[in-house]
Amino acid sequence: MSTLTSVPDALARARDVVHPAMVAAVERLNPELGRVAAYHLGWCDEHGAPSARAGGKGVRPALAVLSAEAAGADAAAGIPGAVAVELVHNFSLLHDDVIDGDRERRHRPTVWALYGVGSAVLAGDALLTLGHQVLLEHGRTGAAASAELSDAVAAMIGGQADDMAFEGRSDVTSDECLGMVAGKTGALLACAAAIGAVLAAAPAPMVAALRSYGAHLGVAFQAVDDILGIWGDPERTGKPRGNDLSTRKKSLPVVFALGGDDRGSAGELRRLLLNGPLDAGAVSRASELVEACGARQATEALAREHLHAACRALAGAGLAATACAELADLARFVVEREF
Amino acid sequence: MSTLTSVPDALARARDVVHPAMVAAVERLNPELGRVAAYHLGWCDEHGAPSARAGGKGVRPALAVLSAEAAGADAAAGIPGAVAVELVHNFSLLHDDVIDGDRERRHRPTVWALYGVGSAVLAGDALLTLGHQVLLEHGRTGAAASAELSDAVAAMIGGQADDMAFEGRSDVTSDECLGMVAGKTGALLACAAAIGAVLAAAPAPMVAALRSYGAHLGVAFQAVDDILGIWGDPERTGKPRGNDLSTRKKSLPVVFALGGDDRGSAGELRRLLLNGPLDAGAVSRASELVEACGARQATEALAREHLHAACRALAGAGLAATACAELADLARFVVEREF
Repeated sequence: MSTLTSVPDALARARDVVHPAMVAAVERLNPELGRVAAYHLGWCDEHGAPSARAGGKGVRPALAVLSAEAAGADAAAGIPGAVAVELVHNFSLLHDDVIDGDRERRHRPTVWALYGVGSAVLAGDALLTLGHQVLLEHGRTGAAASAELSDAVAAMIGGQADDMAFEGRSDVTSDECLGMVAGKTGALLACAAAIGAVLAAAPAPMVAALRSYGAHLGVAFQAVDDILGIWGDPERTGKPRGNDLSTRKKSLPVVFALGGDDRGSAGELRRLLLNGPLDAGAVSRASELVEACGARQATEALAREHLHAACRALAGAGLAATACAELADLARFVVEREF
Repeated sequence: MSTLTSVPDALARARDVVHPAMVAAVERLNPELGRVAAYHLGWCDEHGAPSARAGGKGVRPALAVLSAEAAGADAAAGIPGAVAVELVHNFSLLHDDVIDGDRERRHRPTVWALYGVGSAVLAGDALLTLGHQVLLEHGRTGAAASAELSDAVAAMIGGQADDMAFEGRSDVTSDECLGMVAGKTGALLACAAAIGAVLAAAPAPMVAALRSYGAHLGVAFQAVDDILGIWGDPERTGKPRGNDLSTRKKSLPVVFALGGDDRGSAGELRRLLLNGPLDAGAVSRASELVEACGARQATEALAREHLHAACRALAGAGLAATACAELADLARFVVEREF
């Protein structure tokens, strides 16, 4: 089975199916907020002039569409779910950029940097609410999907709160960090992978299998993101090199490294991170220390382990074979994107 | 029928019925966010020490409980709705304080001023999401209530966006301003007044009558708030005197005043408001000019008109008489609180 050629096609197909529904949803917003949302989504530049769609890869809407197909329904059944998770994902990006003070995303100014904090907060609120509205117009299964989404958003917010609290601590355990990642990243991917099946009124074991696939994919995805956040090419990540280290974020590699013997590299790393925000030299040294602790390898191993667990979760729940193969391909594509 | 003695009792009764459910809901939050929420709600001070419940008057939860009773159900049927609207109201306060840069609320530092913008944004997100979760656990009527709430929140956000956009304009019409108020304030009060009946599976005309009552109450409420925002006693409003004028907010009295003949007081007011943020002397002069235009009287008349429309909306929909009388009393209490 070919992986790296077919997945971009699958993502493009999902985008084409979902995009008109996204546009229709965003058109329901107050015009001011619609303009801000269109800029954030990469549909227009800061002057409102149309620009090439430069948004994200669209992994979440693709998951929602494949989720419906995996449950034996048409792709169309998953579209409200695809729109809702994409809206909610963008709500979280808008607010996270405010919370983290990040001024750039995808090589463009973030919304708060361009339009002010108030506009970014309000546009995020609008997208979150719109996500629920889109689902709640679809009767009983829409209500179940909205409940699935609410629980995911609650977990995502809890994970973000933990992430913020962890920045001031140097004793975060691997379990705490994995719990944070499960909330912050895993919950919405689990929801995306399950929501199409929920909308298709699939039996609970099917929904649970897809949810578990998405939860594992989320951990694998975040592990890769954390590796890129330290060793990634700034051209490709769109963020300064070592960004996560300079802000002393308790990412998976850092937490794994800090868990090591205090006399060696882990001790030096802990002392570096205790001394406030890191300059470029300290960031470079810190990334060497994390690697010397074996934490880069451990994080890569974690990503592969959860990738395999994601694929295993799909077996035996009676899901449609083709969609399952596409979900497995998508997971490998997402996790193997850079190493 | 006694008005001013029985309403505080009715509010206290609703608070007593709803408070345990509010506490149970907030306890579901991530501990960090729960602490921030408890401070915001007035349940504890900034050190986490319990404090006397110093939250708002609890008009929205009282409406939700009376809404269930007006539809012939027990007060208990309205409780999830009361909790949800109170959570959503507090989500909007948390985010509005960030958006408006307000550092004080109810004579205490606002959450963003105390814990930072990130915590205020995230705590608001958490309360909004919790509101939906509380409803979506109540089956078919809970889903209908969640849809009612989503639509209200969308309208509220649209109104807030208009309010922000209007600050930079001096040509806002009365109709635009009334539309903004209907969204920003009316939508959630309409939802609060309808949601108990929705949860009680009341017929559509009953729900519509209660929603209309709440929408009119919202406009009346905002008109009074706008009057207090200019002429209110800072001790009672908890905000500096003339706060709305100094920020050039397009409140109802200001918009009514600016609609006047450009050669008289309206012209002088327009020139004052064009010259950037107002100092204390300019605020004092501006409030005289608004009054000289007859705009204070016009706003008071608007409040009374919508108060009467709210009470009229309750008639003829087969609502329970006692609850209707209490709703009418509550509306008069809210509108007549200061003049």
